[in-house]
Amino acid sequence: MSIAELTADERDALVTTHPKWTLSREGKAIDRTIQFADFNEAFGFMTRVALIADKHDHHPEWFNVYNKVEITLTTHDAGGLSVRDVAMAAAIDAMVP
Amino acid sequence: MSIAELTADERDALVTTHPKWTLSREGKAIDRTIQFADFNEAFGFMTRVALIADKHDHHPEWFNVYNKVEITLTTHDAGGLSVRDVAMAAAIDAMVP
Repeated sequence: MSIAELTADERDALVTTHPKWTLSREGKAIDRTIQFADFNEAFGFMTRVALIADKHDHHPEWFNVYNKVEITLTTHDAGGLSVRDVAMAAAIDAMVP
Repeated sequence: MSIAELTADERDALVTTHPKWTLSREGKAIDRTIQFADFNEAFGFMTRVALIADKHDHHPEWFNVYNKVEITLTTHDAGGLSVRDVAMAAAIDAMVP
């Protein structure tokens, strides 16, 4: 199902409201890197995100090495950022303020 | 604790014995990309690997997007590949032949 891409104003609002995230891919995605105490904490976080992601059928692109997780959010069906990314960023920020 | 880097012959044996893996980073690491049916299967696999990795205190570098997992193995303490990577590659191959 197709979904609308955020407008430029909405993208600006997204990174203002969620300052841990930065725009990437020319405004088509947002990134956040999170450092945890160790792998156990990092993968525990990833597991919580995975459950939310699969429930909403909206999956991150992510890289992990030991205690570090780099997350990229974008909406394929929107050809860029959408409200789904806003919701996912908010959910992640609620876990890791 | 420091650990010996594999010799050139041992590296060759590693990728011969585990042909799904390819040498990368000028022989300092091995990579494998695995495609699953969906995110559920991909993350299920990652969870199994995470448990083994944390038990052996030997963690992969990995990237996931939806049903795809790209894994890089290397041993920081060896400055390249070690027997720990051989063991981890074998454990992963046992899960995903």
